[in-house]
Amino acid sequence: MKQVDIVVVGGSAAGLPAAITARRHYPEKSILLIRKEKQVLIPCGIPYIFGTVGSPERNLIPDGVLQANNIELLVDEAKELNPKEKKITLASEASVKYDKLVLATGSFSVVPPIPGIDKKNVYPVKKDVQHLTNLLNALNGTKDLVILGCGFIGVEFADECKKNRNINVTIVEMLNQCLQIAFGEEACKCCQEVEDYLAEKGINVITGISLTEVLGDDKVTGVKLSDGKEIKADLLIVGVGVRPNVVLAEKAGLAVDKGGIIVDTTMRTSDPNIFACGDCTSKFSFFTGQPSDLRLASIASTEARIAGANLYEISRKNPGVVGVFSTALGNLTVAMAGMSAKGAKECGFEVVTGDAEAADRHPGGMPGMSKMWVRLVIHRNFLLVFAPIHSQSSVIPTH
Amino acid sequence: MKQVDIVVVGGSAAGLPAAITARRHYPEKSILLIRKEKQVLIPCGIPYIFGTVGSPERNLIPDGVLQANNIELLVDEAKELNPKEKKITLASEASVKYDKLVLATGSFSVVPPIPGIDKKNVYPVKKDVQHLTNLLNALNGTKDLVILGCGFIGVEFADECKKNRNINVTIVEMLNQCLQIAFGEEACKCCQEVEDYLAEKGINVITGISLTEVLGDDKVTGVKLSDGKEIKADLLIVGVGVRPNVVLAEKAGLAVDKGGIIVDTTMRTSDPNIFACGDCTSKFSFFTGQPSDLRLASIASTEARIAGANLYEISRKNPGVVGVFSTALGNLTVAMAGMSAKGAKECGFEVVTGDAEAADRHPGGMPGMSKMWVRLVIHRNFLLVFAPIHSQSSVIPTH
Repeated sequence: MKQVDIVVVGGSAAGLPAAITARRHYPEKSILLIRKEKQVLIPCGIPYIFGTVGSPERNLIPDGVLQANNIELLVDEAKELNPKEKKITLASEASVKYDKLVLATGSFSVVPPIPGIDKKNVYPVKKDVQHLTNLLNALNGTKDLVILGCGFIGVEFADECKKNRNINVTIVEMLNQCLQIAFGEEACKCCQEVEDYLAEKGINVITGISLTEVLGDDKVTGVKLSDGKEIKADLLIVGVGVRPNVVLAEKAGLAVDKGGIIVDTTMRTSDPNIFACGDCTSKFSFFTGQPSDLRLASIASTEARIAGANLYEISRKNPGVVGVFSTALGNLTVAMAGMSAKGAKECGFEVVTGDAEAADRHPGGMPGMSKMWVRLVIHRNFLLVFAPIHSQSSVIPTH
Repeated sequence: MKQVDIVVVGGSAAGLPAAITARRHYPEKSILLIRKEKQVLIPCGIPYIFGTVGSPERNLIPDGVLQANNIELLVDEAKELNPKEKKITLASEASVKYDKLVLATGSFSVVPPIPGIDKKNVYPVKKDVQHLTNLLNALNGTKDLVILGCGFIGVEFADECKKNRNINVTIVEMLNQCLQIAFGEEACKCCQEVEDYLAEKGINVITGISLTEVLGDDKVTGVKLSDGKEIKADLLIVGVGVRPNVVLAEKAGLAVDKGGIIVDTTMRTSDPNIFACGDCTSKFSFFTGQPSDLRLASIASTEARIAGANLYEISRKNPGVVGVFSTALGNLTVAMAGMSAKGAKECGFEVVTGDAEAADRHPGGMPGMSKMWVRLVIHRNFLLVFAPIHSQSSVIPTH
């Protein structure tokens, strides 16, 4: 039976940096990365496969980084974990013994329980090359595309699918505005700008309405909405979020909750030799300490670096997750980091906000100038915290 | 005799925001802005007059902002200030009485005492439309241009003057690298990148050498360097910094030091009814509390907002100056804010540094990607200061 010092299960935004960080901290240890995918997609690049980038093959994380860091790769699926024997059993029936284990098993796409959602040509967004190749082929024969969900995935898919294709694109969103979960404000300026952009590109956005049925025989021909309307569709893309993949951990008896595998601030699970990171782990907010639903590649790789460093000696702690979002649609860029003013107030924080609009270069008359709008949201206590650093007795907000 | 509530002397990066801020805070007061320039140049845009922008007239601050804020404009020169009588006498011999006064008299270009520096076709960089028009005309008849000083002004002038002109451009810099004062490191990566860019554009950069003589009869024909070499030149541009204009304040008996008009943290001078801001005022560092030589439009406008707000009721304090620099040369952008690691250590701070190089978009395979290099310099105590804000007991550096 194969025996290695460190085993990492998963090779994407969490598994890969966990293995590389482990290598940097523990140069003498043997490291094995087990993943079921032959090729690993860059998660944030997936929408661009359907327009700008052109194919799943052009959106892959190269394996060279594994060799460069002396990390052994095994393409196989971890089917069973025995924490007592420190053993993993694989789909190939081989097994591996570890000293320290990192679980980075990621997430599943959420498929809402809508009648007819299992019909042909309904595609949840999965991080799988073959699945996305099939979706690309289906898209290229499509006339009427419906996208369920107007978060970043929905918006980016709509924009990319419409590029160079003469098709009708409709997004259906249950909430009142697109990107509302990320930006967290009703009637937010960024959401409105994105909706205006999509309208200008001829993309229909239907908000405040849910999708109640997928129509058609074996293949989708349309969708039915909660207001009774029907929309023609020969392809339905579902981008309504992910849920943690805890199958392996749960079967092994590790502690899990609805947020994922439970870890402490060192990223250790209920078993002292098993760490977990990324979409599969339960998270808490940097700001409030309360459970967080955020699932982002940036968070996954931050957690992975903490887990990888702590395997044999605790040197890092996870301060909790901070949401950082951005996307570019044509010449429009929208981004946010941290909390919205509304979200912060709902959490009981006293905040000071300041809005500003200005040229994105100085002087503003320089060629290629765009306007930039920024809202700063600052915790009132934060201003006081700054005081001890410098020689003055107080710092005054600059707006 | 004219009598107004608030008089501002100076109409550039300090005077203008001081007047606008005063208007915002004191809607009932009469405000008069006195400046000697008929037209005001955007200071940061001056180098671009000679290439990208094309003429001084295309780099002006429009006066509409004065009317929009109900600020009266008087184009005249303040020649004398009598703080006891609260009176200003103008070049036109008229005089004005004020209740509160803001001095924003700016700075003079430094002209080093080099033999021959007063010859024809030697141009210090002055914020004056006629002077810069003359310089532009002289440049258009030039074959060999020498620029003294390789700070931001020198670098930007060299790049712009070379654009669309078949001329030889040489920069002479006393220090060992270009932009060394701003970036504060010997052999810094940003300085090197800028030198490589200039070399690629065919601009000669001579560092570690001083200019000892300006050659020629009445008009410059060349320059002599400290190593004995001579360089042909029919135009010499001098961009070696500025010194505060304290003429009016000093004659009026206000306290001044070599850094400029002395102000407290509320921007008030030694006279309680007179405030000062911008290049003409003495400054201290945000980080150390020690005197600072920084003279930047960003600092001027920050100080101006503090001065303008405090005229009748102290509500803001100046925490000291922070240097923020950036420029773009072709596709190369360099920038810094705060202190260099070397500068911080010299001031006795214990710092943690982290370098990173990455793609400037994510995923990196997206079209138009450039590489971005960043060095973070963090005060060790700053990490501790963060701790009380959130629910965790410590924050760990993420590098």
